[in-house]
Amino acid sequence: MTVKWMSVLLLLQMSCYFRSGSCGKVLVWPLEYSHWMNLKIILDELVQRGHEVTVLRPSSSVFFDQKRASGLKYETFPSSINNDKVEKFFGEWVNGWIYDVPKDSCWRYYPSFNTLFGKYSDYILNLCREVVSNKQFMTKLQEYKFDVVFSDAIGPCGELIAELLQVPFMYSLRYAGGYGLEKFSGGLSFPPSYVPIIMSKLSGRMSFMERVQNMICLFYFDFLFESFPAKDWDPFFSEILGRPTTMVDTMKKAEMWFIRSYWDLEFPRPTLPNIEFVGGLHCKPAKPLPEKMEAFAQSSGEHGIVVFSLGSMIRNTTQERANAIASALAQIPQKNDLLGHPKTKVFVTHGGANGIYESIHHGIPMVGIPMFAEQYDNIAHMVAKGAAVSVDFHTMTSSDLLNALKEVINNPSYKKNVMWLSTIHHDQPMKPLDRAVFWVEYVMRHKGAKHLKPLAFNLTWYQYYSLDVIGFLLACVAAMIFLTIKCCLFVYRFFVKKQKNKKE
Amino acid sequence: MTVKWMSVLLLLQMSCYFRSGSCGKVLVWPLEYSHWMNLKIILDELVQRGHEVTVLRPSSSVFFDQKRASGLKYETFPSSINNDKVEKFFGEWVNGWIYDVPKDSCWRYYPSFNTLFGKYSDYILNLCREVVSNKQFMTKLQEYKFDVVFSDAIGPCGELIAELLQVPFMYSLRYAGGYGLEKFSGGLSFPPSYVPIIMSKLSGRMSFMERVQNMICLFYFDFLFESFPAKDWDPFFSEILGRPTTMVDTMKKAEMWFIRSYWDLEFPRPTLPNIEFVGGLHCKPAKPLPEKMEAFAQSSGEHGIVVFSLGSMIRNTTQERANAIASALAQIPQKNDLLGHPKTKVFVTHGGANGIYESIHHGIPMVGIPMFAEQYDNIAHMVAKGAAVSVDFHTMTSSDLLNALKEVINNPSYKKNVMWLSTIHHDQPMKPLDRAVFWVEYVMRHKGAKHLKPLAFNLTWYQYYSLDVIGFLLACVAAMIFLTIKCCLFVYRFFVKKQKNKKE
Repeated sequence: MTVKWMSVLLLLQMSCYFRSGSCGKVLVWPLEYSHWMNLKIILDELVQRGHEVTVLRPSSSVFFDQKRASGLKYETFPSSINNDKVEKFFGEWVNGWIYDVPKDSCWRYYPSFNTLFGKYSDYILNLCREVVSNKQFMTKLQEYKFDVVFSDAIGPCGELIAELLQVPFMYSLRYAGGYGLEKFSGGLSFPPSYVPIIMSKLSGRMSFMERVQNMICLFYFDFLFESFPAKDWDPFFSEILGRPTTMVDTMKKAEMWFIRSYWDLEFPRPTLPNIEFVGGLHCKPAKPLPEKMEAFAQSSGEHGIVVFSLGSMIRNTTQERANAIASALAQIPQKNDLLGHPKTKVFVTHGGANGIYESIHHGIPMVGIPMFAEQYDNIAHMVAKGAAVSVDFHTMTSSDLLNALKEVINNPSYKKNVMWLSTIHHDQPMKPLDRAVFWVEYVMRHKGAKHLKPLAFNLTWYQYYSLDVIGFLLACVAAMIFLTIKCCLFVYRFFVKKQKNKKE
Repeated sequence: MTVKWMSVLLLLQMSCYFRSGSCGKVLVWPLEYSHWMNLKIILDELVQRGHEVTVLRPSSSVFFDQKRASGLKYETFPSSINNDKVEKFFGEWVNGWIYDVPKDSCWRYYPSFNTLFGKYSDYILNLCREVVSNKQFMTKLQEYKFDVVFSDAIGPCGELIAELLQVPFMYSLRYAGGYGLEKFSGGLSFPPSYVPIIMSKLSGRMSFMERVQNMICLFYFDFLFESFPAKDWDPFFSEILGRPTTMVDTMKKAEMWFIRSYWDLEFPRPTLPNIEFVGGLHCKPAKPLPEKMEAFAQSSGEHGIVVFSLGSMIRNTTQERANAIASALAQIPQKNDLLGHPKTKVFVTHGGANGIYESIHHGIPMVGIPMFAEQYDNIAHMVAKGAAVSVDFHTMTSSDLLNALKEVINNPSYKKNVMWLSTIHHDQPMKPLDRAVFWVEYVMRHKGAKHLKPLAFNLTWYQYYSLDVIGFLLACVAAMIFLTIKCCLFVYRFFVKKQKNKKE
């Protein structure tokens, strides 16, 4: 077959509309809240392109609401916990992270952090067991003949389901604490000299003492990561797959990773060919506001409006914190409305990655009030890039917030810097959503993307760091030195003996 | 200004046709032979898009022929050597590499390799001096007001001219021996456990002894690289720039690097956000052959044709080698004609990157006869991927070549494997040429691409490897141990004294 015809066939194969009924089948193991909101953008686009997307949904799901479905299919598996319990669990869990984990330095996270992640791990593992040990349900999934499993790496199970169904899988991920998953399962390297470990609250160019702090954070998170999956997940994976294995070894088989950041939010660092940085793929141009809202926005005149949001997980905050915020917002002339409107002057945000990206997309400077997760790092990056001012949620008074708002509204450098980030964000060779969808379709077309996976995955850790080779070379050098000394001694003795004999 | 309007303006700015007369100005410091052929593809595309491309051309140039120009401008600087001398120099230099450098293992390259690269370095440095010390010529260049300098990293000078003109610069590069430039100037890392050092002839998954060999090659090339630029180039850069500096420190300022390979030819390895892998950007669909040639090709019937090429630099080979090749080709039924024709069965190639990419592009399996440079590695990769058979140029008989040809023509696995490489090559989110042109235009639009450059470039080597931090932490641990022991001893002595006093 000639290459010309191959190209035509490839083209036909690429746009799955040409092969009605033979488009790809995607199985999704999602996470709730903001993770779901981001993942859904890719899924909707896949549906738009004619693929069949099936989302695994526990009967207790908070977000995977069938009513919101836009062409997505859902497969609901029976779950022991109900919706109220899930909301209660995550509410308490987030509150625990906001109020109970000391945030001044990462070595103080322990032990509250371990407790927190133990709870989360138990929750996900329980859900996962409910799927993979439900034989009837797994048989149903098997019959679908999926082409790819797509999941959020921070909530394990997708790779286990894929392994059981013998289907290639790929990940979306914002981050794992201390970049643990990215490092141990994804093979990425994070040189601690210039890459601040995530959840260290460090950013950009680090001073000597910050690099010391970063190194300590690295040790802490490596230690945490070593203890976290080994305890529960490795035995679970071994049990389900019926052979001694580890969670990390299964995760390593991922065809590709979509990391939900880019060099507008983060600082550049080493990457790998099977990693795509797709930060901000969920951002869309602002639609016109409803009439009443538009009138409200316009009534703000030259002062413009302030958009305030603390994300999808903050349902209740203490009365005192709420008063501080309300009091500060009451003292500025800007009105409080939707992001993306030309009148918007500033975005008051908790610093979740989705919100930060919307702000970058629309070019709106920020006042950050980070509360938990990597929100401190996100805001630290924005502060380092001159696009935000940070306020401490736990200690701020209404005047702290007011001053931060005034600074961002009145000092034009914040607007200038965030517009530069917006330019970086928009001026890419290809839109992040298009890149993500391209690679999902690629993996479906070719049953994987093996040519992008470094051969490092076949090595043990001591082979990876060349310790066996270095040991061997050192042994060779030692042997040579030893032999040289032996030879010298031999020659020396030979001549000494000769001289002695002569003397005698 | 609203984001909407910003986007429209950006769009207008992006397609430079909208701003007639204000399109970008590119200055090019090129290399000759195959390097020029590849670079010219990008330059022609830039001209097509309305940019003004000016190529620096020594009066002695072999390839930068004004007659071949397709809209490129040339600035010719007076050079002491003439065309004949250049051809003679490169002819002898290539012959030296083919016949005088032992190729069995990289540690045997030394000292013939050093002599060879000394000559090359002298040649380029002489050319470079003729440009940068020609004040009249440099003033003329200054008046152009270039937006970017684009050059081949393996022939230094582009970065020096850019530094003098205070213009951002970017590189194209196939490779530097042992990945020296990529590592020391580009900041890339090449873990020796799974990335074969280029010019080691190693490929793919390495055995223990191959990894030992790779580590020795790494040491050899690092040593070579340390001695090569330090001797002549660092003093030269310091002299011209009027301040103590090094070649590597200037090269580090490159906005972006285009590496002329991809994961069809090479095996995946760590990369950086400011590196684009654009291998095969020069490949185009095959045009119909002239009538007579087409008739010749068709007359081959079911046997098809064999394409034979030893690249742009091989002008004369020994009579004996030529006879061996001619004799083997005479014994197969295939005719010898152009690559890319549907009748083509196999490509007999010296293994230059351009030729390999054309073979991958058209999906033609190869018989490799590597002769010098990274041709051994290219063929080793193709052999490892099952798309080629290798023959030793120095020892081959006509029957060796004949057997290799028969194997590739008759065993369908080679065709199958090279078709898979062809699929990888064609099925990318964006064509390599479009990516390259996008980033050249990006650097012109935004006067650089600083947001893609890792902060590692601001660190010293001991900071980069965190040696200062590790030293500090070890000192802290040592101090703590010391203090603990001191305390224990103090307490011990205190009690011993007390007991003694009691006894007394």
